[in-house]
Amino acid sequence: MKIGIVGYGNLGKGVECAVKQNEDTELVAIFTRRNTKDLKVLTEGVPVVNVSEIENWKDKIDVLILCGGSATDLPEQTPKYAKMFNVVDSFDTHARIPEHFANVDKSAKENKHTAIISVGWDPGLFSLNRMYANAILPNGKDYTFWGRGVSQGHSDAIRRIEGVADARQYTVPVEKALNSVRNGETPELSVREKHTRECYVVVKDGADKSRIEHEIVTMPNYFDEYDTTVHFISQEELDKNHKGIPHGGFVIRNGKTGWSNETKHTIEYSLKLESNPEFTSSVLVAFARAVYKLNKEGQHGCKTIFDIAPAYLSSKTPEELRKTML
Amino acid sequence: MKIGIVGYGNLGKGVECAVKQNEDTELVAIFTRRNTKDLKVLTEGVPVVNVSEIENWKDKIDVLILCGGSATDLPEQTPKYAKMFNVVDSFDTHARIPEHFANVDKSAKENKHTAIISVGWDPGLFSLNRMYANAILPNGKDYTFWGRGVSQGHSDAIRRIEGVADARQYTVPVEKALNSVRNGETPELSVREKHTRECYVVVKDGADKSRIEHEIVTMPNYFDEYDTTVHFISQEELDKNHKGIPHGGFVIRNGKTGWSNETKHTIEYSLKLESNPEFTSSVLVAFARAVYKLNKEGQHGCKTIFDIAPAYLSSKTPEELRKTML
Repeated sequence: MKIGIVGYGNLGKGVECAVKQNEDTELVAIFTRRNTKDLKVLTEGVPVVNVSEIENWKDKIDVLILCGGSATDLPEQTPKYAKMFNVVDSFDTHARIPEHFANVDKSAKENKHTAIISVGWDPGLFSLNRMYANAILPNGKDYTFWGRGVSQGHSDAIRRIEGVADARQYTVPVEKALNSVRNGETPELSVREKHTRECYVVVKDGADKSRIEHEIVTMPNYFDEYDTTVHFISQEELDKNHKGIPHGGFVIRNGKTGWSNETKHTIEYSLKLESNPEFTSSVLVAFARAVYKLNKEGQHGCKTIFDIAPAYLSSKTPEELRKTML
Repeated sequence: MKIGIVGYGNLGKGVECAVKQNEDTELVAIFTRRNTKDLKVLTEGVPVVNVSEIENWKDKIDVLILCGGSATDLPEQTPKYAKMFNVVDSFDTHARIPEHFANVDKSAKENKHTAIISVGWDPGLFSLNRMYANAILPNGKDYTFWGRGVSQGHSDAIRRIEGVADARQYTVPVEKALNSVRNGETPELSVREKHTRECYVVVKDGADKSRIEHEIVTMPNYFDEYDTTVHFISQEELDKNHKGIPHGGFVIRNGKTGWSNETKHTIEYSLKLESNPEFTSSVLVAFARAVYKLNKEGQHGCKTIFDIAPAYLSSKTPEELRKTML
């Protein structure tokens, strides 16, 4: 299976590493908007190509993995490249998924390509587990907790405050709430009761720390509804202890069965990830395998994680899966 | 969707309850080998029919859910009824799955029916999570822990000891091992390190407790490789505190990503079930929905949980799923 990567940020690099781990995949080109001379990639011998030349690669790539951002890159790129290639993306703007799906579906169908959008862990594996749990326990309640992990959006929001040199924000699930859900207590939880926010902030020389702290904890939408703690640290400490991009979370469903709903069950799915982009990339590559198989079968158009039979993700045959995994 | 149930034990009763919870399903008949007059069922007005008359119901049932045992019932029943109906079963003898699959596939294909076998949580949801986690993190290690829950097989084994009146055995995962796996330590674990066994035993008058305890803890295959504790209790206490059939467990994969496998991730799926049969029944009914949809599409033959796209389990449309669940 010949893979192409569009965009060489953290996600693109993660895909490159995941391709190396999967014996049935081969990286054939990395496409970038940057000056190709400046880009150092990890895989020896793989061409780095300016994205303007991508059309020349139409018949040399089985699946193109799109590693751009959801805000502006993917809404434009995925429908565009679905005309030329089978594609996978990690579009994660939940509210705009129906619109993105329709655009990609049209491009892919008209050109007999196969696309899967919104692949990753949320949306993605978390969605999948919510869906399975809802189908199995129709009478129940869902909970999603995120973290402990770095929120890029919240870190960026802190960095925009005057006097801030650098910042890292961790979203942290509240243990007490998590345990209540795990124990099947089906609690009603406010925003504040579910997560806390931990901020590590480096200030510029002479900046007013108490003003900065006040601006953070009262920031609407980002922090005002949470219990937020602010730690002022040096750039050295931030670089040493907060360089990683860990994340994770928990999807839990409390459900009831029995003739009078007298029996309780809890289904829990959780991820603990040392690198959010590397894990997301690994999910993308598994779904690229599904795209490849579906396209060979003549199943064209846009799909989501809900439409993909699990066996399509595996390099094992159905017989092997039944024998070794069931 | 018109549902029929074959076999009215704990599993059959669970299916009856699950059908009540799902608005798109309707119970049309319960088939039994017992005297139909003796069988009291929960659903008002649903006919109880001797299984010898099942062929008369061929055109009145969309999916037949087989609630017999895996040792002798299902190997015979599933291929037989797949000739007349679309079927789902919870066949759980892992080693015999390929053979059972082949038999059911033949019957179903020849008669244009659709079947899904080995539906439940292990095999079933646990298998599914192992498969997804392996496809996403090819470089890693799997762990399955069962419990805390009742093992019927181990309880039965104790009951066969001379002098034992009743018994209940709980399989208990070892917290230390579980935490080591959760922390991504990828430990090598012996059988003894993963689970302990707790036995609650009622003895007959005058029975030798120390002999019984010795026979339990040294029993080959069942107990000798485990740390086993035996509690002698009264029948009243057993009936009061140990009547339920709870179960559950944990499927965890530790995996590594990155150019030099330097990044660790942990994927965990767990179930905490107050009633093993009621939960298994709920899984069966969700997959009955998939059988029904697949058969309408003309997809005949035998499938497993690996072959079923998640959306088939849901009563929601693909559009609704994308909008509300992704």
